[in-house]
Amino acid sequence: MLVKRYISEGLAHFSYLVADQGQATVIDPRRDVVVYLDEAAAGGFHIDHVLETHRNEDYLVGSCEIESITGAEIFHADSQWDYQYGFPAEEGQIWWVGRLKIQAIATPGHTPGSMSYLLYDPDGNPWMIFTGDALFSGDVGRVDLMGQNRLEEMAGLLYDSLFTKILPLGDGIIICPAHGSGSVCGAGINDRTWTTIGMERKNNPKLQVDSKEDFIKTHAQMLERPPYFKKMEQLNVEGPPILGKLPWLRPMLPNAFSEAGQEALVLDTRDQISFGSAHLAGSLALWSDTLPKFAGWFLPYHQPIVMINDQLSHERILRMLIRMGFDNLSGYLKGGVLNWSWAGKQLEKVEIISVSAFYQTVNNDPDIFVLDVRSADQPWDDGIPQGVHIPLTQLKDNLSEVPKDKRVYIICTRGNRSMTAASLLMNQGYQDIVVLIGGLTAWQAYLRNEV
Amino acid sequence: MLVKRYISEGLAHFSYLVADQGQATVIDPRRDVVVYLDEAAAGGFHIDHVLETHRNEDYLVGSCEIESITGAEIFHADSQWDYQYGFPAEEGQIWWVGRLKIQAIATPGHTPGSMSYLLYDPDGNPWMIFTGDALFSGDVGRVDLMGQNRLEEMAGLLYDSLFTKILPLGDGIIICPAHGSGSVCGAGINDRTWTTIGMERKNNPKLQVDSKEDFIKTHAQMLERPPYFKKMEQLNVEGPPILGKLPWLRPMLPNAFSEAGQEALVLDTRDQISFGSAHLAGSLALWSDTLPKFAGWFLPYHQPIVMINDQLSHERILRMLIRMGFDNLSGYLKGGVLNWSWAGKQLEKVEIISVSAFYQTVNNDPDIFVLDVRSADQPWDDGIPQGVHIPLTQLKDNLSEVPKDKRVYIICTRGNRSMTAASLLMNQGYQDIVVLIGGLTAWQAYLRNEV
Amino acid sequence: MLVKRYISEGLAHFSYLVADQGQATVIDPRRDVVVYLDEAAAGGFHIDHVLETHRNEDYLVGSCEIESITGAEIFHADSQWDYQYGFPAEEGQIWWVGRLKIQAIATPGHTPGSMSYLLYDPDGNPWMIFTGDALFSGDVGRVDLMGQNRLEEMAGLLYDSLFTKILPLGDGIIICPAHGSGSVCGAGINDRTWTTIGMERKNNPKLQVDSKEDFIKTHAQMLERPPYFKKMEQLNVEGPPILGKLPWLRPMLPNAFSEAGQEALVLDTRDQISFGSAHLAGSLALWSDTLPKFAGWFLPYHQPIVMINDQLSHERILRMLIRMGFDNLSGYLKGGVLNWSWAGKQLEKVEIISVSAFYQTVNNDPDIFVLDVRSADQPWDDGIPQGVHIPLTQLKDNLSEVPKDKRVYIICTRGNRSMTAASLLMNQGYQDIVVLIGGLTAWQAYLRNEV
Amino acid sequence: MLVKRYISEGLAHFSYLVADQGQATVIDPRRDVVVYLDEAAAGGFHIDHVLETHRNEDYLVGSCEIESITGAEIFHADSQWDYQYGFPAEEGQIWWVGRLKIQAIATPGHTPGSMSYLLYDPDGNPWMIFTGDALFSGDVGRVDLMGQNRLEEMAGLLYDSLFTKILPLGDGIIICPAHGSGSVCGAGINDRTWTTIGMERKNNPKLQVDSKEDFIKTHAQMLERPPYFKKMEQLNVEGPPILGKLPWLRPMLPNAFSEAGQEALVLDTRDQISFGSAHLAGSLALWSDTLPKFAGWFLPYHQPIVMINDQLSHERILRMLIRMGFDNLSGYLKGGVLNWSWAGKQLEKVEIISVSAFYQTVNNDPDIFVLDVRSADQPWDDGIPQGVHIPLTQLKDNLSEVPKDKRVYIICTRGNRSMTAASLLMNQGYQDIVVLIGGLTAWQAYLRNEV
Repeated sequence: MLVKRYISEGLAHFSYLVADQGQATVIDPRRDVVVYLDEAAAGGFHIDHVLETHRNEDYLVGSCEIESITGAEIFHADSQWDYQYGFPAEEGQIWWVGRLKIQAIATPGHTPGSMSYLLYDPDGNPWMIFTGDALFSGDVGRVDLMGQNRLEEMAGLLYDSLFTKILPLGDGIIICPAHGSGSVCGAGINDRTWTTIGMERKNNPKLQVDSKEDFIKTHAQMLERPPYFKKMEQLNVEGPPILGKLPWLRPMLPNAFSEAGQEALVLDTRDQISFGSAHLAGSLALWSDTLPKFAGWFLPYHQPIVMINDQLSHERILRMLIRMGFDNLSGYLKGGVLNWSWAGKQLEKVEIISVSAFYQTVNNDPDIFVLDVRSADQPWDDGIPQGVHIPLTQLKDNLSEVPKDKRVYIICTRGNRSMTAASLLMNQGYQDIVVLIGGLTAWQAYLRNEV
Repeated sequence: MLVKRYISEGLAHFSYLVADQGQATVIDPRRDVVVYLDEAAAGGFHIDHVLETHRNEDYLVGSCEIESITGAEIFHADSQWDYQYGFPAEEGQIWWVGRLKIQAIATPGHTPGSMSYLLYDPDGNPWMIFTGDALFSGDVGRVDLMGQNRLEEMAGLLYDSLFTKILPLGDGIIICPAHGSGSVCGAGINDRTWTTIGMERKNNPKLQVDSKEDFIKTHAQMLERPPYFKKMEQLNVEGPPILGKLPWLRPMLPNAFSEAGQEALVLDTRDQISFGSAHLAGSLALWSDTLPKFAGWFLPYHQPIVMINDQLSHERILRMLIRMGFDNLSGYLKGGVLNWSWAGKQLEKVEIISVSAFYQTVNNDPDIFVLDVRSADQPWDDGIPQGVHIPLTQLKDNLSEVPKDKRVYIICTRGNRSMTAASLLMNQGYQDIVVLIGGLTAWQAYLRNEV
Repeated sequence: MLVKRYISEGLAHFSYLVADQGQATVIDPRRDVVVYLDEAAAGGFHIDHVLETHRNEDYLVGSCEIESITGAEIFHADSQWDYQYGFPAEEGQIWWVGRLKIQAIATPGHTPGSMSYLLYDPDGNPWMIFTGDALFSGDVGRVDLMGQNRLEEMAGLLYDSLFTKILPLGDGIIICPAHGSGSVCGAGINDRTWTTIGMERKNNPKLQVDSKEDFIKTHAQMLERPPYFKKMEQLNVEGPPILGKLPWLRPMLPNAFSEAGQEALVLDTRDQISFGSAHLAGSLALWSDTLPKFAGWFLPYHQPIVMINDQLSHERILRMLIRMGFDNLSGYLKGGVLNWSWAGKQLEKVEIISVSAFYQTVNNDPDIFVLDVRSADQPWDDGIPQGVHIPLTQLKDNLSEVPKDKRVYIICTRGNRSMTAASLLMNQGYQDIVVLIGGLTAWQAYLRNEV
Repeated sequence: MLVKRYISEGLAHFSYLVADQGQATVIDPRRDVVVYLDEAAAGGFHIDHVLETHRNEDYLVGSCEIESITGAEIFHADSQWDYQYGFPAEEGQIWWVGRLKIQAIATPGHTPGSMSYLLYDPDGNPWMIFTGDALFSGDVGRVDLMGQNRLEEMAGLLYDSLFTKILPLGDGIIICPAHGSGSVCGAGINDRTWTTIGMERKNNPKLQVDSKEDFIKTHAQMLERPPYFKKMEQLNVEGPPILGKLPWLRPMLPNAFSEAGQEALVLDTRDQISFGSAHLAGSLALWSDTLPKFAGWFLPYHQPIVMINDQLSHERILRMLIRMGFDNLSGYLKGGVLNWSWAGKQLEKVEIISVSAFYQTVNNDPDIFVLDVRSADQPWDDGIPQGVHIPLTQLKDNLSEVPKDKRVYIICTRGNRSMTAASLLMNQGYQDIVVLIGGLTAWQAYLRNEV
């Protein structure tokens, strides 16, 4: 028997393989499905079924990909939408994985047709529940995806799902949600990697409410919504294009890369230190470690993408983008920026400032322009007093607030968003930009150290 | 953050790595510690601490091995014994792993000084408990290790540990025991791979008792005790010899192997089908898939061991034996039994009989001698009517019950013990031996199919 | 820079990756091309070109597979045939791989349009030659593929290719042939894994001739030709079907396997010891270690194949078959023959005899029937005096020579062909079959040991 | 059979495993010997012998390491020195590896007792020669290690070894030298990865001489000699300390790293772009890709070393240093420089200038100070006209030539040495330093592009 969780880096998406006695079921697979296939092959399990907890909005689901290989039957939730593949999962429906029973429980709220799946142990006792985006460790699903109009309705549905269907299953049940800490699907998700109904009942802040009204009042909120969600929602109903295998990434020497970059977007996945030091004119800074968080905001679906990446694994980036439907990443600069420099080609820099120098600058010159690009849900008052707040994701629409004739100091929580902001501004013609390396994390630590 | 379980195949021993923010703690490590070190290195964690839940009797603990590499401090339970390494863990003692607190809770019963370790989540809530051999999924620890005299005393201690210390922690707590299904430390352990206090409280048969007396009455039993336990108990107090790395296994061509076999025990790890068909005279049949269950009964500590193995991974067997202190495995027959045959050397066989032929034999000849070597805790009445019951582990001491002048049919649950029994008998001069391939599992399936 | 050889197990097919400065060329790729792609990706090389030395007859070439992934241009030899993909390679044509030049040299003989490719080092000196099936280490290509009519013509062409085009390149040139020891394309190929023109000129027995006439006289011979060659020849001109990824192998529990076996051929890849001991009725014995040698004789293209395999890697067998166009392997028996036995299902055996017992049998009973199934090109007179010689590949057409009313002892070189022969005979209704384990290798070693 | 070459990155050291029929021999093993052991274990080969071609001066030989594990017998050349392990290899001595013969041939010149080892194929024909540092692809061994006094004597010995012992073996013999392109043991070694006597005879520039005198005259030269050579020479005669396994690298959070750095040397292995942008005060810049070239010049043996490394594999660096006897690398900064910044700690930068800006600077201001730190054997006249030439390895001894009161522009071939020079100068109190990113490679490419 095997119950295994797979974590998609950056998206913090959790998927699961449940296997017993030659059979296997995957819950909410990601699109690059080789991990499930390899595990199943190693254990001698045949993947018969794929279960989806809801129409996912933040990644492309791999159900059709698995079906194309093993012939698995797909069961999807949210059958109110016009699915072009698989079968609808019905409330109470049962599947078997060897000795293990799985049962569908309708838990709407995040989407109108969200399903949870209750797994029983070999002796027939309720054991684990796959809650999708209904219930996380430390948070519950967002309810704003149906729009402002249905906000309270959806929050009410979620309340009922949580308090009348999931929690009554008993404290001892293990919860297997669709996301972990770092997901755009729940800012409050913590990293208690395994959790139970008992622990959530006691410790999940969203469940500490007096009444349904109370829950609706506090939880019915519109949140930021990356533009790529729309694409994911559409493709996840249509059935995402079948990959078969990962696309080939073409290594390009500087001249070829230069030519490709005429048409393609140049994505630079290196960190703030490297990008600041030397980068290609016109490139977009999106650090690999947080790439999935921002790719959906800034990358195009209808333009080729070529990449600069100083890690050994180009495939890591490819997988991240493929999971979000960016099948248009076509190649990378072989040898990276050093190779570009050896070809005698032009390099740009973004000035970076270390925290001690910035401290002096701020203290000496109260009139400096500080652009704070932290996310909208950040508590704003702990930044630099001078900070003008424009979340990174809203920067392009608010350029008028950023002076072109003044040095612009950019800050954020850790420095990564700042460098992305810097690359966006430079591509808009801004020239005098300085990024605080390490961001407010560095700032606050510096203040603590100094005192 | 990382909480990861490692399963030692065959022993069904579970060990755990808990890691956060550059620090790591290992609970009950096995002796080949490279898995912990690799994981820690990959995540940038330094192993500061090793915690032992009790003096283990079924494998050599890897605590000193880790200490020799990372300098970790070792804390052991059972400090009533004369430990020659590490520090005693005290009731209530606290360790930190990054943001995670671990606290010792004395839970005697399996051994007099058994400890459990309660892990808190990053917010300070009780989260998981490492119960060692106190509480398993579906079973509780055996209480007979202190001998018949202290049987009831230990059972009483265990009752108190379970009912007054562990269960009151709350249903939502996740249980991380030291063994899973298949261990010699609990015949009733099931394979609900992750479990909680809530699930055990409801479903663990050993916890469904009315009173302490009831618990003691049903649970205070002497069980089979493999002879190697004594060696493990001694070395785990002294500190097992440091390995550094895995020993080198010498590949031997037939002539060299033949010479080595003069002095060494020849261990044949192939399955019943292969061993029956062709094997070396004098070799001992112990199938790799169940090797750790029987090695402690039949392998010597003070004689070299050489091996025949038809799987690709000789290292797999090496690891199994090293974990049990058999550092005397020195080499293997390169090319296996086929290579032996190509050298023109002698091969023996054990007659095997398939279930349909055996069915006819049993029906036609009520006087055949059937030796049933299933384990002592098996319900005996579902076998072959003629079966004479001598558990495999007691066979050597009961040879007088096995006739030398008659064909001996050997049966067991699946056929593996039978082949080991056959090899033992052949080495005692028995000549007319037949093994039922597939054992009683095949027999019962055959009867079902036929009806 | 990188020049790397890939060996396809069993077929002993050699393919090569040549890479420099971001570019790569593959010579004679096999069909499962992930090895080339992974290596190229790891080194940052783009595969621009695929070069074929000739129309291959013993495996499916992976050229189109690579083209489908990287867009490489394919150049094939033997353009006298009606190729449906790629471009013809012309005598003298040049390609560049970074700093490295590759030049085509027409070397007909094995096929009418065979090409060799001469690789120059970065300084422009001739360095290595990819000789395809023209010249091997210790042998030269067979010349019988165009039929008896053109036998001498082709031998003459090969002589000219070898003596007027390849050898004059100079002793220091390194030879990279398309096959190594064990290939059906040259019985005399030795395992001098790297060789040079100088070493072949001196040591290759086929090159020690006085004249073209001498060469033709000794080398113009019709050889055995496995029936699958025809399929390979056709598909390699048409372009083999694109795989994309390896097909999924379905693990099957005994009941499902039993059902599948109604329609499918059951291929048992275990060795003679295991197959003899217990196997499924009707199954075909083809040992994994020599599978590619015999698959083309005994496996069907238009019937599903299901497999029994006791090694961990089912993929290994899948790859072997895929390379020969057997895309019809669909699944395997999960848990192998042991699992089959536990389901109470029927098992058969083939009697095996060890060499000492066989020695006595032969000496005691001069009238026994011994079937010697060694290959046709074997020196026959070193076997058992009583041996009736029918090569395994001709057995089906010569069943009338094998008595059904007599015990049939089967021998071969090492015992593997014997077990295949045994399974073929059993499927034809033969019942009293005995296989000499270890074959004549064991026999001769036994005689040496005894004397 | 197996003949495999292992390349130690950076050192460009080649070692070899020769294996056949259960036996294996390693030639010139490196100190981290797991590659040989794993390969031998996978193929079922026992390593009986280790052969050394000479007393190595540029790395620690792994002979004793292998002996400690498999019990192999070690044979060393240069027995005129006082070896404390193994046996001397004698001219003409023979070893067997299965069917393969190896024979010692004395080929002095690089050292007084250098040996080559001639490998015969299974049929007994001379096949490959392991030439150590006598003969490389494109170069021959240096002859200056015995000092100026014996320079001509050693060159004469080498001439005789090459022209009377190696070359006469015949053009078809494959050469397996101890070093490839990039080694400090031969600046002219090219990357013709496999070569033959024929190819060297024709193409190796050092072999194109008219007479012994001619050879001595051109080849008898004193070359740069890294200070660590002395340590290697001593330990390779004594027998290097046995590792057993790789040492543990401690991951350190910023505070712990800061503390460790009080005493330890801080080695920063990131490239010029990252180091220039932000680094720790006092750290030494040695880029991982060329680390083995410079470690022996700048790292201490008697001071702990802690590391900053932005690649995933800290082990890669560890291996590089271990091979050179730097067993004092003890840990690394977890999370790298970003993590350091988030802790609010101080960061420094080195100004870098891109080639176009530098071009303007040079043209506008003929008085700038340009420090050219390319190696001593570089043709100096192709640099920047203003360049003052001080090879990196001689910089510390020539600080007086570098002004402290002026901006110092540093250039080299590709920019890496420049950044090391910059870090050395900063640690000497220099403050106004600018590094030309991409070095003269960028400069020359820029000029070509511009014209």
